[in-house]
Amino acid sequence: MTSDPARQERLRELNLGLVFREVLAAEGPVSRTELAAATGLTRPTITRIVEELLAGRLVTETGTTLDGRAGRPRMGLTLSRSGPAGLGLDIRSDGLAACVVDLAGKVRHLVFAPLTDTDAPAVLERLGRMASEAADAAAAEGLTVVTATLAVPGPVDGGIVRTAPALGWRDVDAGGLLDAALSGLGLATAVDSEANLAARGELHATGADRSLNHFGRTATHFIYVSGGLDIGAGLVMDGRLMRGARGWGGQLGHVTVDPEGKPCRCGSRGCLQTYASLPALLGGEAVPPGASPESVILGRADAGRPETLAALDAAASALGVALANVCNLLGVDTVFLGGSFALMDSWLAAGVRAELEQRVLFADWAPVTVRPATIGPDAAAIGAALAVVDRISADPAAWIAANR
Amino acid sequence: MTSDPARQERLRELNLGLVFREVLAAEGPVSRTELAAATGLTRPTITRIVEELLAGRLVTETGTTLDGRAGRPRMGLTLSRSGPAGLGLDIRSDGLAACVVDLAGKVRHLVFAPLTDTDAPAVLERLGRMASEAADAAAAEGLTVVTATLAVPGPVDGGIVRTAPALGWRDVDAGGLLDAALSGLGLATAVDSEANLAARGELHATGADRSLNHFGRTATHFIYVSGGLDIGAGLVMDGRLMRGARGWGGQLGHVTVDPEGKPCRCGSRGCLQTYASLPALLGGEAVPPGASPESVILGRADAGRPETLAALDAAASALGVALANVCNLLGVDTVFLGGSFALMDSWLAAGVRAELEQRVLFADWAPVTVRPATIGPDAAAIGAALAVVDRISADPAAWIAANR
Repeated sequence: MTSDPARQERLRELNLGLVFREVLAAEGPVSRTELAAATGLTRPTITRIVEELLAGRLVTETGTTLDGRAGRPRMGLTLSRSGPAGLGLDIRSDGLAACVVDLAGKVRHLVFAPLTDTDAPAVLERLGRMASEAADAAAAEGLTVVTATLAVPGPVDGGIVRTAPALGWRDVDAGGLLDAALSGLGLATAVDSEANLAARGELHATGADRSLNHFGRTATHFIYVSGGLDIGAGLVMDGRLMRGARGWGGQLGHVTVDPEGKPCRCGSRGCLQTYASLPALLGGEAVPPGASPESVILGRADAGRPETLAALDAAASALGVALANVCNLLGVDTVFLGGSFALMDSWLAAGVRAELEQRVLFADWAPVTVRPATIGPDAAAIGAALAVVDRISADPAAWIAANR
Repeated sequence: MTSDPARQERLRELNLGLVFREVLAAEGPVSRTELAAATGLTRPTITRIVEELLAGRLVTETGTTLDGRAGRPRMGLTLSRSGPAGLGLDIRSDGLAACVVDLAGKVRHLVFAPLTDTDAPAVLERLGRMASEAADAAAAEGLTVVTATLAVPGPVDGGIVRTAPALGWRDVDAGGLLDAALSGLGLATAVDSEANLAARGELHATGADRSLNHFGRTATHFIYVSGGLDIGAGLVMDGRLMRGARGWGGQLGHVTVDPEGKPCRCGSRGCLQTYASLPALLGGEAVPPGASPESVILGRADAGRPETLAALDAAASALGVALANVCNLLGVDTVFLGGSFALMDSWLAAGVRAELEQRVLFADWAPVTVRPATIGPDAAAIGAALAVVDRISADPAAWIAANR
């Protein structure tokens, strides 16, 4: 057989990726013997690859005895807790969040600051300072922040936030502002919608992304619905986040519930938004200073206020109709209620389920599961930070080479 | 470096797949030199792989001179026109179709028979005979049919047709009946919904599947809507057909257009089906014997019959509302109208576009394209037959090994 250095090099990179994703997919420490068995590679090859992964700070050794019975302790390998890390930034209706995760997806740093000014340059300037502080805090724990991803409440088209009504933004170059704000840090940056990134966070919380990054894909399908000032959704099909053409999918808030319904800010009529967003549930009444819209709505519902109870019922039905459409279109069998919907779950879930039962064609054979999201309001910040895992697992050899 | 026969074997298989998909992606004959440049493999490696592909009847040589200027003619490689082939079977409202395609996706045989009896065993028995005849016809052209895929008008769950109202089927084991009907032929069989397979056919007709099978994926996103007795849809995201959990996606006919609308056979209310299916457009009137429902509806519309014109307007609006939901959810930017909708395109397209313009959030930045499907009523049969391309391109080395 002809010796071919380029081929051998590509093979080495592919195998390194294979081994790294095995470590990523493992629930606990994994031994070199297990890696050899799982990948079909020889022990000398595994040994050489593990050396590279250790030198690249992607994995670390742990002296755990995996075998509970008597015998020699086996050296296990785990994802590094002091290697590359990801930074997630989130612009929420109630404030700004910055989050750092390590390669295992563990949150290592999380800070929150109130949002006082929604003007884009001011917001990004504030986020830039939070990012610097987060990178410093991460460095103190031996982590190196290498990615920064910003979550915004609206559809994003190549870094441009097309419309984020909660912030009053339209055609804002958030990607450009983010790069400027983080210019000293040398990070790989990205901007995506809050709903997409929250769904990415939920994918991690359910554990489905471990096997996703592993070999092939899991058959995970779900929709993560994010309630709030605006309603968005992240769609996971075959374990992959579906962003749609130019990233404009997930606009559940603008699914038509009633074609002749109330006018929506977007120019259409009868959008889910007009029934189930926080402003719709507040019925136009103001929120007292210092209180959150959700706490005001829940307080009124607990007090039995008829207008609020009727608004919650209408919201649940409308949300159920919109979600039934998603299920019929996409064959999605699990719905996670996130954001404000998670907080109001006990008022909404029964109404949502009733519509799904009536309207989803396959509900007779496979009822749709509806439940509150596993992670709370930090879902999008965490999902944004997880970009580091996606980036490095896609090609760990390239990462090691670039950071030697 | 340690010699490792298993590794070398896997590398050989990966490279063979790489080269085969280059031939698949090429628009015309491709030379060994071009394959070496495209894959980064050495000429000796390319030569050896091409020998294997020729022996496995996956590619053939053609003496075309690629260089139009003077010079020696270069030997080009193309997909084999006499190698493995795929069989597609389709149960339509007006009859049964059987179709054979070669590896290049070219239709080599297509027959149609009227549907006289919708009883499942009778239908499958008839399809079995059509399949045998098609396999014989293909063999006469040097093709070997290796896959058989059946398209049915309804959602399919592991070979079981859960519901196909046009046929009066519920929980029919079409996979089992297909295997029994084709037992003598030794084919790899599958059953899928008409809408999914028609979308697969459309993907081929647009040429987007060539680059799909190539390296990475194209950013093709579209919805193929199939009108008829029932309304279904096939969703293509990132160039991949999205089947949803258990293959139950694409039920566009049961997307709610008006929550308080007319009752639908499915148990829900206000489904798109109740506005835009052929029965809805016929307004309950019978179709004369020998005429197609579409021709009756078009005849009435051309004659200016007010009820028919009103029904077409209502259907167009309802279809527009349902499709706007798809676009908002999935960020899909292209809609292909197929089946009966393709025939009625001139009566529907303007009404559909008006709703999309009003209701799709991103329409201001990227208008949604609406157009008749590229391939006609044989879309699903062709899409079903294309399973051979998907199967072999996924792992050509395994196919060669199994058919040596």
